[in-house]
Amino acid sequence: MAKDQTRVRIGFDLGGTKMLCGAIDSAGTVIAGKKKKTKELSDSEALLDRIVRCVDGCLKKAKLERSDVAEMGIAAPGPIDTEAGVLLETPNLGLREFPMARLLRERLGFPVFLENDVNAGLYGEYRHGGAGGYRNIVGLFPGTGIGGALIFDGALYRGATGGAGELGHMIVEPGGRMCGCGRRGCLEAVASRGAMAREAALLVISGKAPTIEAGAGTDVARMKSSLFLDAIENGEQAVVELVDRAAWWLGVGMASCVNAFNPDVIVLGGGLVEKLGRRYVDAAERSMREHAMEFLVRQVKIVSAELGDDAAIVGAAELATEANARS
Amino acid sequence: MAKDQTRVRIGFDLGGTKMLCGAIDSAGTVIAGKKKKTKELSDSEALLDRIVRCVDGCLKKAKLERSDVAEMGIAAPGPIDTEAGVLLETPNLGLREFPMARLLRERLGFPVFLENDVNAGLYGEYRHGGAGGYRNIVGLFPGTGIGGALIFDGALYRGATGGAGELGHMIVEPGGRMCGCGRRGCLEAVASRGAMAREAALLVISGKAPTIEAGAGTDVARMKSSLFLDAIENGEQAVVELVDRAAWWLGVGMASCVNAFNPDVIVLGGGLVEKLGRRYVDAAERSMREHAMEFLVRQVKIVSAELGDDAAIVGAAELATEANARS
Repeated sequence: MAKDQTRVRIGFDLGGTKMLCGAIDSAGTVIAGKKKKTKELSDSEALLDRIVRCVDGCLKKAKLERSDVAEMGIAAPGPIDTEAGVLLETPNLGLREFPMARLLRERLGFPVFLENDVNAGLYGEYRHGGAGGYRNIVGLFPGTGIGGALIFDGALYRGATGGAGELGHMIVEPGGRMCGCGRRGCLEAVASRGAMAREAALLVISGKAPTIEAGAGTDVARMKSSLFLDAIENGEQAVVELVDRAAWWLGVGMASCVNAFNPDVIVLGGGLVEKLGRRYVDAAERSMREHAMEFLVRQVKIVSAELGDDAAIVGAAELATEANARS
Repeated sequence: MAKDQTRVRIGFDLGGTKMLCGAIDSAGTVIAGKKKKTKELSDSEALLDRIVRCVDGCLKKAKLERSDVAEMGIAAPGPIDTEAGVLLETPNLGLREFPMARLLRERLGFPVFLENDVNAGLYGEYRHGGAGGYRNIVGLFPGTGIGGALIFDGALYRGATGGAGELGHMIVEPGGRMCGCGRRGCLEAVASRGAMAREAALLVISGKAPTIEAGAGTDVARMKSSLFLDAIENGEQAVVELVDRAAWWLGVGMASCVNAFNPDVIVLGGGLVEKLGRRYVDAAERSMREHAMEFLVRQVKIVSAELGDDAAIVGAAELATEANARS
């Protein structure tokens, strides 16, 4: 076996609040990991320094040197020019047109590639998780918003300018509820945890969601997925109905995906799916089967993401290895 | 130049009411055409015979022999197994699991390939029509229903089982109007000419659409695209509003396509686009730009189909040539 094939890859997930680094072997196993905060950074130099320290800390845990690394893949939010390795616009990190791949390569000494974090997460599930063995894959990740990603004929589909897969912004209720994107009626505006929280605030005010009230009051930003699970387990009927309704809307979006893409499988992931589990996924699947065309929905599988927080680092590493082999 | 490259291709459009055959040169030009009815056929044998006579008639007009033909591509409605050359289900023609490619190859002596008619039409526009030079293309063809097709990274995207691109069945009004597919709330149920006709019947009954009344009475099947144009030109305000509303809904569907696929271009074609022209396309585009995400819609072009009835035969011929080169 050539030396390159045995070398480790670095997968890196650059989130708005934390960064997660993993040393990943050729089988996709995370052999060591390291986490740091993304907050409280003065400027982009400080961000690059912290990323480098996070990578070095991860390598130290794995008892490896920088020279053992074949390449690094970074999963980051927002639109990205993957070819050029440039973060186009990342409001959470205050970056615009930022050539992160080149700047990190200069500091670290190995090739660095960037990918959108939702794309990287789905790619991880495709290569080593719940979507293995399929060729046409839709990923939907409901959280504060709804992330989406697409794998067609075995390859990530990025679209004309790298922005494809905004499935949370398919329009399901024209003129309806306001969405974080500034438009109205998007799937995300009715089916995300954010949408659930905004409705739950009304339930709190009317005294119908005591568990959520105890955990978050009327602060929608504090209404985490686990709080909805607690309310359901405490038998709060109004919350049960609210969650079922959100799952029903998610199924409407899944049905549009089935009819438009004819996928083999839809992967559902993210906090809501992890916490609410089978009950939530089943409700979404029932709605999908009620709304999608019979001849297309017949063979579609619904699977839950399996890799959790590791999905994006594993996917980013695999994409980096593929990109490096092509370059 | 090798002899094969100079040979002619046959493009064939097998519709529910008529069949259209063209002899097509390597530049995509239709050098001779022939048309026959598809109706009044006793069985599949009679259908095959008529197709063969249509092809022979076309070749005669072009002063060519069967031996001059490199390959033939057939565009047909409904789901198709393109690999096997089998029509899976074509209610209009009364066919199921019908191995048309093999049966015609046996009769005609040259390779025959099948493709869904909407896919073939968009492929024709991609290779020789309004969508030339782009790599990521959405096609929307509003008529009785709304046909859709997708070209990603320069290749037709067929999905897991050949059924991708049912863009007329993206859900834009959950629980809303009934659709021909048996579900409710599909784009087709609110934006197609069929949907316009069902609303126009109400206008006829209330005396607000005299032009449509004169041309079709309340028979929705007789309300052709040209009748809507006539009513608009006669200044019938209720019809103007009805058409603008349907275009607005089409724009909602286009916006979902922009957000999900990040295309370079959306091709609009079919009878409504041909008859109503700029006014209708502009109204749809305005609605799309109002509903789609700013960073994705910025660079999207909207173009009208250019090849009319020839799109499917030209596209089927090009796809056949490509399939034959691979086989």
